[in-house]
Amino acid sequence: MGDDASVGGRGMILLKPDPENERLTRKVEGLNERGESQEVRVVEERALTLYLNSQEVVTAMTVGDYPDLLAVGYFRNQGMLQESDEIRGIDYDEDLGVVVVRTARETDYEERLKRKIRTSGCAEGTAFGDLMEGLESKSVSEGGSVRVEDLLVLLKNINTMPSLYLLAGGIHGCVLCEGREVLLYVEDVGRHNAVDKISGYMRMHGLSGEGKLFFTTGRLTSEMVIKTIAMGIPILVSRSGFTAYGVQIAREHGLTLIGRAKGKRFMVLSGEERVDYGG
Amino acid sequence: MGDDASVGGRGMILLKPDPENERLTRKVEGLNERGESQEVRVVEERALTLYLNSQEVVTAMTVGDYPDLLAVGYFRNQGMLQESDEIRGIDYDEDLGVVVVRTARETDYEERLKRKIRTSGCAEGTAFGDLMEGLESKSVSEGGSVRVEDLLVLLKNINTMPSLYLLAGGIHGCVLCEGREVLLYVEDVGRHNAVDKISGYMRMHGLSGEGKLFFTTGRLTSEMVIKTIAMGIPILVSRSGFTAYGVQIAREHGLTLIGRAKGKRFMVLSGEERVDYGG
Repeated sequence: MGDDASVGGRGMILLKPDPENERLTRKVEGLNERGESQEVRVVEERALTLYLNSQEVVTAMTVGDYPDLLAVGYFRNQGMLQESDEIRGIDYDEDLGVVVVRTARETDYEERLKRKIRTSGCAEGTAFGDLMEGLESKSVSEGGSVRVEDLLVLLKNINTMPSLYLLAGGIHGCVLCEGREVLLYVEDVGRHNAVDKISGYMRMHGLSGEGKLFFTTGRLTSEMVIKTIAMGIPILVSRSGFTAYGVQIAREHGLTLIGRAKGKRFMVLSGEERVDYGG
Repeated sequence: MGDDASVGGRGMILLKPDPENERLTRKVEGLNERGESQEVRVVEERALTLYLNSQEVVTAMTVGDYPDLLAVGYFRNQGMLQESDEIRGIDYDEDLGVVVVRTARETDYEERLKRKIRTSGCAEGTAFGDLMEGLESKSVSEGGSVRVEDLLVLLKNINTMPSLYLLAGGIHGCVLCEGREVLLYVEDVGRHNAVDKISGYMRMHGLSGEGKLFFTTGRLTSEMVIKTIAMGIPILVSRSGFTAYGVQIAREHGLTLIGRAKGKRFMVLSGEERVDYGG
C-alpha cells in the first residue's frame, strides 16, 4: 500500500492522454456535409503482436502507445502472467510492431489459447473462462466509497481534459481514479486495450485497486465488470449503458456499478452502499 | 439480383428491432443521481456457443436473437463457410445456448482457428488474416450512390425507429439500406454480432450488397471497413468516428466512407464520388 497511498496522496496524474503526440493521430482530407473540403484528425490504428517469452499470443489493433503496459496487462488479465511471476524484461520493436514480455518462470498457457470466447465488450482473445477463474480467486474489498459531489467533479474533469477523443474521436478511454483525483487516464482504439494498459501499469508499479474508482467510456458488459473485480477496484463508472449480465455479476461480487453518467445524471444498479449522496 | 431488387423495390423492412420481446431486456431496480429508487430496462447479454458441423468454434456474448443468422454470418465472415457451401440445416438449443450449422461439404478451418487477432472493432474471433483474404477475392462494385437528402432522412428514420437502444441503451445497431429504405436493422450487445447477423441474412436470402448502404452505430475501424467491402456494399456510414487505417483501406478499395453522421452533419473521407450533394 505504501507506493499506492503515496501515489494517491500526491494527487498528480501518472498517465494522461497525449494529443500532442504526432504518432497517435493523422490529418486526413475529406468533404463535410456541405461538400466543402475539410481536414480532420483521425486516430491511428496499428497492429501490435504480443509475445510472452518465445510464444506469439495475439495481434492487437491499437493506437500504439504504451506497448509494454498493454502486453503486461493483457497477459495478466488472461491469467497467462501470474502475480508472482517475475518480469525479466520487455522488448518493443516499433518497426516490426512486436512486443515481447520475458518472465523468469516457464509460462504454461497453451491450454488457455485453445479456449475462445467472444465478449460483448469485444475483447478479442479474452478467454471468458480465464476471466471467471480470476474472479473466483479475487473479491472486491469491503471499503471504498464515492461522494456524488466528487463523482460529478471527476466526470467533468475527465470529459474536459485534453485527449485524443476530443482531438480526433473514434477512441475509448479508461480512467483510474481516487477520490476526485485522476491517477491514470489511457485511451485506445480498442476499449479492452485501454483496460489492459491500466492493468499493466498497476501490475508494474504495485498499484492496488483498493479504494479506487474505475471510469470507462465503454458499456458495462460482463467482461468490463469481471475485469474491474479482477483488478480489485470496488467502483466502476461509465457514461454508457449496462447489460443485465454485467449488473448480475456486479451484484454477486459486491461491485458498485454506476452507469449512464452524463452531465449531472447517473444510475446506480449495484453496490449503492458505496455511494454517498451527502446531506 | 431478382430477389435483391424486389426486396429493395417493396420498400419494406425485412428485419427490425423488437423492443417488445421480453427475452431481450430485463427490468432492474436502482438509484438515480438524487438517490431515488428507479426501475430501468437493461439489455440482456447471454452466451451462445457456435458449432460448425461437429466442431465447437466460438462462444459469443449476445443479446440472443437470430442465433441462426449470427452463426451463419460469423462463419461466413471468418471464411469458414464458403459461398458455394450448401447449408444442410441449423439447429438451435435455447436452453443449452448452442447453435449448430451443418454443411454438405467437410469444412476445413482448423488452421484458421490457430490464428488470432484482436481488432479495434473488438470482434473476438475475427481472424484478421481471414478478413484480408476475403478482401482480396472481392471488390466494391463501381455503382452505388447516395443523395445527401436521402442520407439525412435515412439517419433520422434509423435514430427514431423503436429499438432496444432507445428502450434500454447499451447496444449496437447495424442497418442495411437501399436508397432511403431500411432493409435490415439488427442490434446486439456485440457490434460484430450485429454485422454478422446482417451478413448471415444476406447469405441465407441471396441478398447482394450491390448498390446498398451500410449504417453502423460503431466506429469506422479497419475491421468494419473490411467486413463492409467483403459484403460487397459500396457505402459505409457511421455516427461515430474513424481510424486512420480504416480510412486507408477504404480508399485503397474504393469504399465510400461517411462518418460522424449526426443530425445534419457528416464527414466523407473516402469515395466522395458516390455522394450526391444535389444542386
